[in-house]
Amino acid sequence: MAVDSLERLKIAMREFAKEREWDQFHSPKNLSMALAGETGELLDCFRWLTEEASYQLNDQQSQAVKEELADVLLFTVRLADKLNIDLFAEAQAKMLKNENRYPVDRVKGSAKKYTEY
Amino acid sequence: MAVDSLERLKIAMREFAKEREWDQFHSPKNLSMALAGETGELLDCFRWLTEEASYQLNDQQSQAVKEELADVLLFTVRLADKLNIDLFAEAQAKMLKNENRYPVDRVKGSAKKYTEY
Amino acid sequence: MAVDSLERLKIAMREFAKEREWDQFHSPKNLSMALAGETGELLDCFRWLTEEASYQLNDQQSQAVKEELADVLLFTVRLADKLNIDLFAEAQAKMLKNENRYPVDRVKGSAKKYTEY
Amino acid sequence: MAVDSLERLKIAMREFAKEREWDQFHSPKNLSMALAGETGELLDCFRWLTEEASYQLNDQQSQAVKEELADVLLFTVRLADKLNIDLFAEAQAKMLKNENRYPVDRVKGSAKKYTEY
Repeated sequence: MAVDSLERLKIAMREFAKEREWDQFHSPKNLSMALAGETGELLDCFRWLTEEASYQLNDQQSQAVKEELADVLLFTVRLADKLNIDLFAEAQAKMLKNENRYPVDRVKGSAKKYTEY
Repeated sequence: MAVDSLERLKIAMREFAKEREWDQFHSPKNLSMALAGETGELLDCFRWLTEEASYQLNDQQSQAVKEELADVLLFTVRLADKLNIDLFAEAQAKMLKNENRYPVDRVKGSAKKYTEY
Repeated sequence: MAVDSLERLKIAMREFAKEREWDQFHSPKNLSMALAGETGELLDCFRWLTEEASYQLNDQQSQAVKEELADVLLFTVRLADKLNIDLFAEAQAKMLKNENRYPVDRVKGSAKKYTEY
Repeated sequence: MAVDSLERLKIAMREFAKEREWDQFHSPKNLSMALAGETGELLDCFRWLTEEASYQLNDQQSQAVKEELADVLLFTVRLADKLNIDLFAEAQAKMLKNENRYPVDRVKGSAKKYTEY
């Protein structure tokens, strides 16, 4: 049995879809839409809050954010699986890339996008 | 040292932000925007492709999708961390909820949203 | 010749797509992805800005926002056209609905979502 | 009284917000989130449909799409207004730019992004 969190979610999502015969709907294109739909719902949780308030969610807001983040993670894992992408390896590779793009001594305390440097 | 993938990414993102003094920009509100921005870029990879073609990406398309998925995962992990959300636990809880919402014998082979059942 | 702004954009978009034989790519599904992709780029313009700073864009930021808003409007018009939706009529109907959902005397100065009232 | 559709919606949205004292929430940053949230809901209307089916919506689906498109248009108009952007002029300028980016004789029948040409 897989012990790693991302691996376990990948396998669980596979079984969930297979049991329901939902693989036919889970094209990468469709899953990208589902994923973006969920991040849209996440935005709804925060859109009228100040940045300060976004740290201090009440129970109802917190529960909503938790569910949307879970959906986002699940569809991300599922989409990666359908394209045989090693999500963890890609995330690590991207972090290395970001470390080169944003050298500490140049970007410290600044939020400019790397294209502006 | 953390051995689980999600845990390792969480810690790596924390250090990345801390070194650059970027915590100040990483409010949950801002991170939700960053996350949704990345899923928007993911949509761009697929918008003019047929569903069939979305399975058969060329090297350039595949590389773009990998980087966007990595960004999505990293911001998801980061947002959860800023709100002290246990992402893996929430994903597992959501899967249980989905199993109840979509019983196999009712939804097999159908993509209707649960509110329609 | 059409004189109304939305009508003129609708016709211009039709001709633009027809000349390029792009109607085949402009399914409502694909256009919804293109539209959401553009709003994702719009988010990128604002994600690290404070609310205050989002009112005071520099020239580069302002130009980026203008182009993204233009893209959003153009794809909105195009998607409505492909589904024979009268965009202006629907926007007016939605405003009426919102006026009933959010009566002035109940919501004044509060940003709660109508479902919370 | 304004006769142009975009002008009328702009004025109506202004009055709607003013009566409710909602200007304080309508920072460009917040409105970009609201707009992207609405396009996320639009994606939900289409995510499991084939391209063919996305042309043939049933009444319930059609009503949902109409409302989401209306929301998208209203927030687009509102955001442009808050930044004193002439939405129609920008849309026309973008169409000119697109005509240069995608010359008919080069892109006919092809959906490649202009950066690939």
